Amino acid sequence: MVNLSTISETGFVPAPNLLFTNSVERAIDDMAGKLNPVSVFVLVDSNTASFVLPRLRSQSKAIASATVVQTKAGEENKNLDSLASIWKTLGDQGATRSSLLINIGGGVITDMGAFAASTFKRGIPFINVPTTLLGAVDASVGGKTGINFNSLKNEVGLFREAELVIVSTTFFRTLTNAEMLSGYAEMLKHAMLSSREMTDRLLRYDITGYEPESLLRLLEESVSVKCGFVSLDFNERGLRKALNFGHTFAHAFESLAMVRKAPLSHGYAVAFGMVAALVVSRMKLGFPSDDLQRYAAYVAENYGAFEITCDDYPRLVQLMHHDKKNITSQEVACTLLRAIGEVEVEVAVPDSDITAALDIYRDLLHLP
Amino acid sequence: MVNLSTISETGFVPAPNLLFTNSVERAIDDMAGKLNPVSVFVLVDSNTASFVLPRLRSQSKAIASATVVQTKAGEENKNLDSLASIWKTLGDQGATRSSLLINIGGGVITDMGAFAASTFKRGIPFINVPTTLLGAVDASVGGKTGINFNSLKNEVGLFREAELVIVSTTFFRTLTNAEMLSGYAEMLKHAMLSSREMTDRLLRYDITGYEPESLLRLLEESVSVKCGFVSLDFNERGLRKALNFGHTFAHAFESLAMVRKAPLSHGYAVAFGMVAALVVSRMKLGFPSDDLQRYAAYVAENYGAFEITCDDYPRLVQLMHHDKKNITSQEVACTLLRAIGEVEVEVAVPDSDITAALDIYRDLLHLP
Repeated sequence: MVNLSTISETGFVPAPNLLFTNSVERAIDDMAGKLNPVSVFVLVDSNTASFVLPRLRSQSKAIASATVVQTKAGEENKNLDSLASIWKTLGDQGATRSSLLINIGGGVITDMGAFAASTFKRGIPFINVPTTLLGAVDASVGGKTGINFNSLKNEVGLFREAELVIVSTTFFRTLTNAEMLSGYAEMLKHAMLSSREMTDRLLRYDITGYEPESLLRLLEESVSVKCGFVSLDFNERGLRKALNFGHTFAHAFESLAMVRKAPLSHGYAVAFGMVAALVVSRMKLGFPSDDLQRYAAYVAENYGAFEITCDDYPRLVQLMHHDKKNITSQEVACTLLRAIGEVEVEVAVPDSDITAALDIYRDLLHLP
Repeated sequence: MVNLSTISETGFVPAPNLLFTNSVERAIDDMAGKLNPVSVFVLVDSNTASFVLPRLRSQSKAIASATVVQTKAGEENKNLDSLASIWKTLGDQGATRSSLLINIGGGVITDMGAFAASTFKRGIPFINVPTTLLGAVDASVGGKTGINFNSLKNEVGLFREAELVIVSTTFFRTLTNAEMLSGYAEMLKHAMLSSREMTDRLLRYDITGYEPESLLRLLEESVSVKCGFVSLDFNERGLRKALNFGHTFAHAFESLAMVRKAPLSHGYAVAFGMVAALVVSRMKLGFPSDDLQRYAAYVAENYGAFEITCDDYPRLVQLMHHDKKNITSQEVACTLLRAIGEVEVEVAVPDSDITAALDIYRDLLHLP
């Protein structure tokens, strides 16, 4: 077990390839000018093709000149078929190693586009422009790229940093409350990993009352927490696993939801997964009961619950053993909190504790 | 244009992850002991499953304990389907991020297995054990991984070094003369990039008269030439392109052969591609005529010729424009020789010079 509670004292430094701005088109053109690619390609899905691309095309020289590569929207399309079709379009449209790919969309587009760029002709440069809050807070830093495969989330991918990630809140105007809450779960996670003050502030903030400037500042603060952990451990062999808080449960929930053909958004899965992870934290490390109750009440009120019964336990436990963060096949390794701001990674959790925690999770979220 | 003729004076240092030995099983077990993986997987094709795996299984503890992943042999199976099946087997058989993959086979297996390992769960460690001369001399160093895609060689892949590459000549006993000659073409390339003395020595050496100890020493010398170029430029943005000598033509020949459904081995393609590249070198940089004649005669005698007519020229030129080493789409960039040991990279060659060179290539190799 590694105690990370002292890390925040070292001060987190934002990644150099990360820009928080609401002048997106200028940021794109500045970077394209610097990279001077022989040709520009822009990856969008059907949503960003309609809602984002037209405006950027009219305002950015680089985007106006770009060849558009379009894929189907949705987590269910973050797969090998879509990836192959991106590779094929890049090749057929004459992309070379000195071309630039600009990925404009949510986490599906930035994860998959970054993976496509990192492996096309053994790697071409790319820029990520997240258009959802979840994408901005989660997929924007850390260089995680990939696709779902063999019914497992991000089973295939690699670590590779974008030339630039442009984080903006201007795209969030058209997002639903559910989409805002989905991203907010990761911001709550960063707060709980970092400080009580930030956690309290976020639990009071009205995330569904879209206010672009205050949100951009909050995002910058939240992402800097992530940057700190990533900068300490880019390839996720140790400390970076702090960011996995809530995710071992979340990924299992998402996989189960995929099997049920009723996909669960990643942020909601994380909101629910953190409830279960805090229960395990209470069991194994004495995480304070009142903090657990307060967070669970916030989730129940704002997110509802991911419905499970005890019949789902064996499958969930099996999925958690398959999680790629698991370093051995023998026992599930979880990131847990001793208290808010005090994180421990790779805590071995026996299957019996997992099922006990799922019982309490159901109680806390008022499930039958 | 960059003149690399002075590089050999700096002295080439072998890569630290590269071992030349005829005690393969000991090298595997030593490295497995050092890495201490939670589980070991071994990738083979139908050839190495029959001819190599049984012996290694009886002699190496790590291989004896490994889960075997098998794919179909042959360049035509270095594709997305095989890759997906490797990923799936690793996942289904419980491989984790702390598992180890040992790739045992020719270049198809080491390239594809390395790519699979580099992208499975965002990257697991791997060891390459090339079992062909071509694999040993070409795919053993430089971290190039990948698969063929969209009818193009190595269109998808990435740069990633193995934990260890074990180069041995013990596996070559069962290779055909054609397989030995295929690997030898890359050794001739290294010699021509490096020195007249090495070139003369190799043109006299009897590569088909299998002599494991002298060949292991020759291999070590040849691979060290490659290591030097790679160490100067791992991601192939500049100097490393020296190693691409002959390959722009070779890849086009191979792609054309794939279209004809009569695949050409990579080494033979390189042997032929170097004839064409030396012709262009003579045209553009005054490469000496007698050296060109001597090499072409060696190829005609030992390798024969890849048959083309002028009807194939437009297709070949188009394929060369698609080569991923090409930094712009406008003009084909070739690595050429001013003389033996004097290389220049990224020489722009107009299409008319390419077709003129193909005419002379046909003359030199006695094609109608």
